[in-house]
Amino acid sequence: MQVWKDYQEKNKEAFLNELLDLLRIPSVSAKSEHKADMLRCAEAVKKSLLEAGADKAEIYPTDGHPVVYGEKIIDPSKPTVLVYGHYDVQPAEPLELWHSGPFDPVIKDGKIFARGSCDDKGQFYMHVKALETMVKTNTLPTNIKFCIEGEEEVGSPNLGKFVKEHKDLLKADCILISDSAMISLDTPSIDIGMRGLSYIEVEVTGPNRDLHSGVYGGAVANPITILAKMIASMHDENNHITIPGFYDDVVESSEEERALLAKAPYDEEEFKKDLGVKALWGEKGYTTNERTGIRPTLELNGIWGGYIGEGAKTVLPSKAYAKISARLVPNQQSDTITKLLIEHLEKSAPPYITVKAELHHGGEPYMTPIDSTAYKAAAKAMHATFGKDPIPVRGGGSIPICALFEKELGIKIVFMGFGLDSDNLHSPNEKFNVENFYKGIETIPYFHQYFAEMK
Amino acid sequence: MQVWKDYQEKNKEAFLNELLDLLRIPSVSAKSEHKADMLRCAEAVKKSLLEAGADKAEIYPTDGHPVVYGEKIIDPSKPTVLVYGHYDVQPAEPLELWHSGPFDPVIKDGKIFARGSCDDKGQFYMHVKALETMVKTNTLPTNIKFCIEGEEEVGSPNLGKFVKEHKDLLKADCILISDSAMISLDTPSIDIGMRGLSYIEVEVTGPNRDLHSGVYGGAVANPITILAKMIASMHDENNHITIPGFYDDVVESSEEERALLAKAPYDEEEFKKDLGVKALWGEKGYTTNERTGIRPTLELNGIWGGYIGEGAKTVLPSKAYAKISARLVPNQQSDTITKLLIEHLEKSAPPYITVKAELHHGGEPYMTPIDSTAYKAAAKAMHATFGKDPIPVRGGGSIPICALFEKELGIKIVFMGFGLDSDNLHSPNEKFNVENFYKGIETIPYFHQYFAEMK
Repeated sequence: MQVWKDYQEKNKEAFLNELLDLLRIPSVSAKSEHKADMLRCAEAVKKSLLEAGADKAEIYPTDGHPVVYGEKIIDPSKPTVLVYGHYDVQPAEPLELWHSGPFDPVIKDGKIFARGSCDDKGQFYMHVKALETMVKTNTLPTNIKFCIEGEEEVGSPNLGKFVKEHKDLLKADCILISDSAMISLDTPSIDIGMRGLSYIEVEVTGPNRDLHSGVYGGAVANPITILAKMIASMHDENNHITIPGFYDDVVESSEEERALLAKAPYDEEEFKKDLGVKALWGEKGYTTNERTGIRPTLELNGIWGGYIGEGAKTVLPSKAYAKISARLVPNQQSDTITKLLIEHLEKSAPPYITVKAELHHGGEPYMTPIDSTAYKAAAKAMHATFGKDPIPVRGGGSIPICALFEKELGIKIVFMGFGLDSDNLHSPNEKFNVENFYKGIETIPYFHQYFAEMK
Repeated sequence: MQVWKDYQEKNKEAFLNELLDLLRIPSVSAKSEHKADMLRCAEAVKKSLLEAGADKAEIYPTDGHPVVYGEKIIDPSKPTVLVYGHYDVQPAEPLELWHSGPFDPVIKDGKIFARGSCDDKGQFYMHVKALETMVKTNTLPTNIKFCIEGEEEVGSPNLGKFVKEHKDLLKADCILISDSAMISLDTPSIDIGMRGLSYIEVEVTGPNRDLHSGVYGGAVANPITILAKMIASMHDENNHITIPGFYDDVVESSEEERALLAKAPYDEEEFKKDLGVKALWGEKGYTTNERTGIRPTLELNGIWGGYIGEGAKTVLPSKAYAKISARLVPNQQSDTITKLLIEHLEKSAPPYITVKAELHHGGEPYMTPIDSTAYKAAAKAMHATFGKDPIPVRGGGSIPICALFEKELGIKIVFMGFGLDSDNLHSPNEKFNVENFYKGIETIPYFHQYFAEMK
């Protein structure tokens, strides 16, 4: 609609500057030192919703970081869209690899560089600005609710309780989430699936104190060596995961679905070049897109033990640690896999060490049916602004709360993501293309329009 | 001698307080931030030598940390003993495991707790106080030279050059080193061998940047997983080291020597209890004392990669690192083993990662013949103060410079150590028993007396 376009064109600089302000708040949910920043960020989100035209916006405390809720109800008889997003971000480490400060956003070559620029501040803020566009031009076709949480990056430990206790408040006809990627502006796509997650931490203890590696080396188990053996044994020579029972509940994709997936554009040479690797690694028998989409995986997210400072220290350490996470596909259950992982590690521990393993967080896999109204409205909205139909793809990431949303609220979720896989999510130099940010703001009002028409 | 005893009894408090002052200087050679502390410590050592009665003491700069040289020449025709020690210490990390500050020495239950208390400030300082005892009582029977370096804990990279350039200065009849342990005050022992060392660092690179473990996990090699596989493959199921050629030059100990070693007191239950482990780990076919004495070993001294902070981060890291060291026995060569290690790691690297490995430092194994004058003098000195003959044992640690000392100066080394294996060398809560400190000061003058008599 021309009024939307005009309004957005006139305000594009303001939209961008407001986002930059939001990105300056280091809202790292994983680190307790950022508790005050989290509150400050929640306040900023609340304020932005009210300024965009929400009737009301409130901060709901939880046992962890607060949830920001806002709404604009035009007519209770009209369809309601619930927008979910998160204002928390991943830790920025390793800081030395950033070209500019993670919380000091800069725009370079048309890209916004900052932690959270794409995941998810830049993306949920598109919805705030889309709301503003529709409110200020008196064209809002649906009721709209916002649930912007502060714990997505740590597995949403308190959102489940919030959702259960506020079912009426959150009542809606669909959930719209922009917290994922599309293939490119030339090849729009919509994620129809998210993988589940099981994230654990393991502690291996050898001797009860750090030892001199000369005096004791060779006579007592080194926890790093043993942890390495435990990790090494978790993938076989075909890179299948060896944990007993791990694949039991996996729903194998049909040949048809695999054929459909194979249609997504993919250039292996380009993929390798972008990552700077000479060869790819992965589960035998599956393509790259299948490995990241329809197959469960097991990744080491961190490892540490012994002396990791400058120079050399001849120590045989007492402890070694690893952070390990599995991505899950339908119908794997996060609880089941977590139990398998922890039991496998604890049971396979040789007698000369002790192992403690515990859950950080988990989440269930989720699939969106492409025949749902929400999916159709999203596809049509993207067609309106991109000039072509989006391709349905399986995303590799996880939004832990999806399955619970559907269960508690009884409605479907659609993932309309405007990021790119190359946005360095969770990595140094996270970025969000300015063009994608504007494209999102342009597309979202169409979703509301088509959803209202179809519903 | 009674005059020694009287002098030492009168000055015991001063001896201890001076050592505490020395321990307050954080002379960590591995860390560039301690460069000024290293200089300050060298000055303190020089001053202590002069105050103890040295004719001269000087600080010799090197390309790294300086060497402190001092001497007391009573008569060039008399035998000369060269005392070697080091004023640098290991890094104190992990700091949180110390019960008191590593550079804030405290005495508790008769033990001096501080980094360097035993290794090696407390031990070389016994020689300074022994010198003082002999000088102040006009009883010094030998010439005495001190070479106290500042880079032992980083592999003495510059001492070789110093020794080569100062052969005349260092000319002596034997080298006496107190930088090792004895079994106990009840069971005195002398190390007749030191293991060599080959210490490397390896960097494994997967993708060229940290990646989102959901978006890319399963499709690109995780450097932590691959590093773990590389580490796991370095020991076989019998805990033999699998690196081709690693054992080629090892001189197998004779049955006689193994029988002699078996006589050293060893209580496996006590050993396990002290370390807090349910079972021991080690190379099949060898006892604990053999594993730490006559066999080469390979230990992981540190490992790190990915996110190691609080909470969870779903990252697939670009890099993972490990610090790995081998202890060597006669006739393994440090250079050869380093080359084997590095080549093995680089050659065994699968095509989907890149590996860089480089040397931190190395040193050759060393053996002292028990029929040497120096050994005999040391054994007799210990008999004089302990009332029994010391047991000859094979030490597991390394003093990298030993082989070079012998080669350049053409003289034998004797290791008269007064520490204990339980002194937490290189670990948090390093300590040195006050009683052992005094016993060393008491014993050393006898060494000089007997060495002068035997020579």
